[in-house]
Amino acid sequence: KPRYSNEIYKTANMPGVAVGLAWTYVGGDILFIETSLSDGKGELKLTGNLGNVMKESASTALTYLQSNSKKTGINSDLFSKKSVHIHVPEGAVPKDGPSAGITMMTALASAFTGRKVKPYLAMTGEITLRGQVLPVGGIKEKVLAAKRAGLKEIIMCWQNEKDVQEIESGFIKGVKFHYVKTMQQVLDIALA
Amino acid sequence: KPRYSNEIYKTANMPGVAVGLAWTYVGGDILFIETSLSDGKGELKLTGNLGNVMKESASTALTYLQSNSKKTGINSDLFSKKSVHIHVPEGAVPKDGPSAGITMMTALASAFTGRKVKPYLAMTGEITLRGQVLPVGGIKEKVLAAKRAGLKEIIMCWQNEKDVQEIESGFIKGVKFHYVKTMQQVLDIALA
Amino acid sequence: KPRYSNEIYKTANMPGVAVGLAWTYVGGDILFIETSLSDGKGELKLTGNLGNVMKESASTALTYLQSNSKKTGINSDLFSKKSVHIHVPEGAVPKDGPSAGITMMTALASAFTGRKVKPYLAMTGEITLRGQVLPVGGIKEKVLAAKRAGLKEIIMCWQNEKDVQEIESGFIKGVKFHYVKTMQQVLDIALA
Amino acid sequence: KPRYSNEIYKTANMPGVAVGLAWTYVGGDILFIETSLSDGKGELKLTGNLGNVMKESASTALTYLQSNSKKTGINSDLFSKKSVHIHVPEGAVPKDGPSAGITMMTALASAFTGRKVKPYLAMTGEITLRGQVLPVGGIKEKVLAAKRAGLKEIIMCWQNEKDVQEIESGFIKGVKFHYVKTMQQVLDIALA
Amino acid sequence: KPRYSNEIYKTANMPGVAVGLAWTYVGGDILFIETSLSDGKGELKLTGNLGNVMKESASTALTYLQSNSKKTGINSDLFSKKSVHIHVPEGAVPKDGPSAGITMMTALASAFTGRKVKPYLAMTGEITLRGQVLPVGGIKEKVLAAKRAGLKEIIMCWQNEKDVQEIESGFIKGVKFHYVKTMQQVLDIALA
Amino acid sequence: KPRYSNEIYKTANMPGVAVGLAWTYVGGDILFIETSLSDGKGELKLTGNLGNVMKESASTALTYLQSNSKKTGINSDLFSKKSVHIHVPEGAVPKDGPSAGITMMTALASAFTGRKVKPYLAMTGEITLRGQVLPVGGIKEKVLAAKRAGLKEIIMCWQNEKDVQEIESGFIKGVKFHYVKTMQQVLDIALA
Ligand SMILES: [Ca+2]
Ligand SMILES: [Ca+2]
Ligand SMILES: [Ca+2]
Ligand SMILES: [Ca+2]
Ligand SMILES: [Ca+2]
Ligand SMILES: [Ca+2]
Ligand SMILES: [Ca+2]
Ligand SMILES: [Ca+2]
Ligand SMILES: [Ca+2]
Ligand SMILES: [Ca+2]
Ligand SMILES: [Ca+2]
Ligand SMILES: [Ca+2]
Repeated sequence: KPRYSNEIYKTANMPGVAVGLAWTYVGGDILFIETSLSDGKGELKLTGNLGNVMKESASTALTYLQSNSKKTGINSDLFSKKSVHIHVPEGAVPKDGPSAGITMMTALASAFTGRKVKPYLAMTGEITLRGQVLPVGGIKEKVLAAKRAGLKEIIMCWQNEKDVQEIESGFIKGVKFHYVKTMQQVLDIALA
Repeated sequence: KPRYSNEIYKTANMPGVAVGLAWTYVGGDILFIETSLSDGKGELKLTGNLGNVMKESASTALTYLQSNSKKTGINSDLFSKKSVHIHVPEGAVPKDGPSAGITMMTALASAFTGRKVKPYLAMTGEITLRGQVLPVGGIKEKVLAAKRAGLKEIIMCWQNEKDVQEIESGFIKGVKFHYVKTMQQVLDIALA
Repeated sequence: KPRYSNEIYKTANMPGVAVGLAWTYVGGDILFIETSLSDGKGELKLTGNLGNVMKESASTALTYLQSNSKKTGINSDLFSKKSVHIHVPEGAVPKDGPSAGITMMTALASAFTGRKVKPYLAMTGEITLRGQVLPVGGIKEKVLAAKRAGLKEIIMCWQNEKDVQEIESGFIKGVKFHYVKTMQQVLDIALA
Repeated sequence: KPRYSNEIYKTANMPGVAVGLAWTYVGGDILFIETSLSDGKGELKLTGNLGNVMKESASTALTYLQSNSKKTGINSDLFSKKSVHIHVPEGAVPKDGPSAGITMMTALASAFTGRKVKPYLAMTGEITLRGQVLPVGGIKEKVLAAKRAGLKEIIMCWQNEKDVQEIESGFIKGVKFHYVKTMQQVLDIALA
Repeated sequence: KPRYSNEIYKTANMPGVAVGLAWTYVGGDILFIETSLSDGKGELKLTGNLGNVMKESASTALTYLQSNSKKTGINSDLFSKKSVHIHVPEGAVPKDGPSAGITMMTALASAFTGRKVKPYLAMTGEITLRGQVLPVGGIKEKVLAAKRAGLKEIIMCWQNEKDVQEIESGFIKGVKFHYVKTMQQVLDIALA
Repeated sequence: KPRYSNEIYKTANMPGVAVGLAWTYVGGDILFIETSLSDGKGELKLTGNLGNVMKESASTALTYLQSNSKKTGINSDLFSKKSVHIHVPEGAVPKDGPSAGITMMTALASAFTGRKVKPYLAMTGEITLRGQVLPVGGIKEKVLAAKRAGLKEIIMCWQNEKDVQEIESGFIKGVKFHYVKTMQQVLDIALA
């Protein structure tokens, strides 16, 4: 299994890709968010069988980065000269909810800066337009899925810390948790 | 709890953010309206799982500010040179109704003028295109939610004063009420 | 109550606002039509929880005024240099039907000419593209609502005169009726 | 009643208006098709609670006139320099079906040429893009409605002649019928 | 009946019109495809109560002709300088399915080249983007409808030949069949 | 049957066409993906009765090729100067799912480079925006359909190898399998 994990994450080792944690009807799962920039006029293309709330997360993430381009070190011209495509693989599975917000924002920041996301890092959390990270549900299932998949660090909202403390500690041995309040903290950890 | 409230409102302490009061199936709740301006051509982007009536409130608020830019001290060129994104956090919760109208208008005015909204202030009320504030329902539940969340001042329509008078006075001790007729009064109080 | 009415109509005392009469599931009611012009390219924005037939009335009213700009004294350049926003307050209430047609046309003409609508005047009637006023239903309920709200003059189609004659005369004492055939007659009365 | 009819048709006595015959759930009825041209870029605006088939008839009529502008004497520049609005009054009544096709084409041709449609003339028939007139249903009900409304001439497809012959002759005394094969014949009769 | 047929086909005797065979709930029927070009920017307008699969056939036919303009002798500038309107008469009848594909392509090629389609010729078959003709269903009903309507030649896919051989030969006496593999063969026969 | 197969594949022997494997309600089937480029502005037109997931696959494939134009040897100007039409024949059959992803990407690459796809080659697999090939379902049915249709080589994800090993070897004698991890490997095999 570790070898299989390596296989997975090697392919994620490029700018524009980040690993999120989802809570589906079959339990917790990991989710790759893939972002690609092409020449364009600021269009946002979203694929991967995404529901409206998840699409709105992507739109919010993109606006946040555009409004805070100086702080995040992104050349602001890119927002009007590139088109952005965000894809979430496994098109047969419908996906929705706000909890991929910080993962989408991280994948976008990675694509716009050309900096890779730290390997073996996952994250889950809703974003707000003013740069906050909000708590989300299903933490136990998501954390166990991350552990099973060989991930080593997880970022989430500080208000979700209590949910992690309820998990038996043996199950999550060796996983490092980052509890954050703001998107800027997420980017500081993720784009090392 | 006060410390938790401080936490919340510290993050709201920036131009473009205003606090509204909503009446949901779980009772009264507070609602952050977040607004962000980017380079653009006057587009209005709305996210946060909003229903059509709430989206129309945002559109009405934006037109009001554009038509009354002189009175509100906004550079009128901004309306055609910026795109406006309004987001209401907690994307998993569907939101609708006209009662966020004056909060949206205030958040927009704050973003366009760069002036912060007064801290610990909440508001609820429908807006009209000619600048009136109309009464809304659920006042008791909204006011109690505001009190619980540590808010200290509330703006609403003068026709809602009778609803506040029906609340037992001990419950709302220390909360200051502003009863208004026009949007201009709202802005005079909110953008101090 | 008169004082309350004064309150209402004082706020209506500006170009772009006209008072209509609606027939809803709770009986007759008065309806404010608010119009606002901004810099634009002839777009028509409609808000207030309006159904398709009511939206079509607005579109028809706008085309009539554009095609008859000379007759109505409107600078024809405005139709391509302004965007028009029509809002009908009380967003929580769905509204539909063709009977707000002449009120929409009047509010638009008032906004485009800068001339205020005569105070304490209400109206109800369908419009046609060639400038006719057509009869509508619910006259008794609408007229009584207008009377209750302190309105003093009402414009309607000449084919609705028979409906007014069926109302007991004591109920409508002091209300003046204008029976018209054409939109031009409506404007001659309303934009005094 | 004749006087009432005169009233109706006097208002129709302007370029861009033609009278059609419809077959509704309450039997046959007459239908005014109103057309108005404004400065624009060839847009086609359709109002009056029209179904998709009826909207397609309008689009087909407009393309026919554009493709045959020489034959019909229309300045072909108008098609790209004007916007066309077609309205069918009585917005509360949903309308659909292809039988208003030749009436729409006639109203459009009248608006584009500035020539009035012959008074007291009605028509019913589907149009094709190559200029044919096709038969339609409900002839008896439509013809009787035309007679009741004081109309004096009716145009329809030659394949509908058999339907007229089945009507008792006393009912349609004084009505003149025109049986046609092509749109050009319709225009020759209507734009006298 | 022959005289009636002559009547029908005389009106089809113009560039842009082709006769197809359809299989409806009332059995086989003939279907006119009418195409008209106007000044424009390459828009494709489709009317006649068409379903999505039939609309996609029209789009596929247009792309094929554009990609193969040299082979088919069409001036390639026309695709960006003209708007194309395809109409299928009898708007009251919903139509769908891929079997009108080759008829649409033929009508388009006829309109773009100005060459008339051979008289008394019908056809049925699905098209592909690479220029193949695919077999379709309902051959017996379609062929008998063509015979009844006085048509004399029918084009279809070579894989439908077996379906024709199952029809009693007396029923189709005097009808000539063309079995084809490619669109180019269809055009060679149809645009004689 | 071999002769019939030859017939089929001869017509596929042109740039822009690739053969995929689908799993429908009647079992496994082969699927032609046809791509055609015309002068345009980067539009993507999709026909063939495709569901949303399949349309998203096409969009993802196009973005991948645009973002990796150097690696795949495509002139990057083409993406903004051409319009792309992807058609999947047999319009009467609804098609959906992500498994045509690599076939669509191959057909697109073939059209953009002008290089033909290797004959008698089929493929099935989901694509990701970062260039991975993901496993898909229905392998046994798809492989047997490919064998019946006379295909000689099949590309799929290395994680589907176990599904092939479960098929009785006599059934797939003479078929060569390629197990891949990346789109680049697919293109290296397919565009020989
Ligand atoms: Ca998974
Ligand atoms: Ca996530
Ligand atoms: Ca809340
Ligand atoms: Ca509020
Ligand atoms: Ca009311
Ligand atoms: Ca009214
Ligand atoms: Ca009527
Ligand atoms: Ca008619
Ligand atoms: Ca027929
Ligand atoms: Ca056909
Ligand atoms: Ca098949
Ligand atoms: Ca495939």
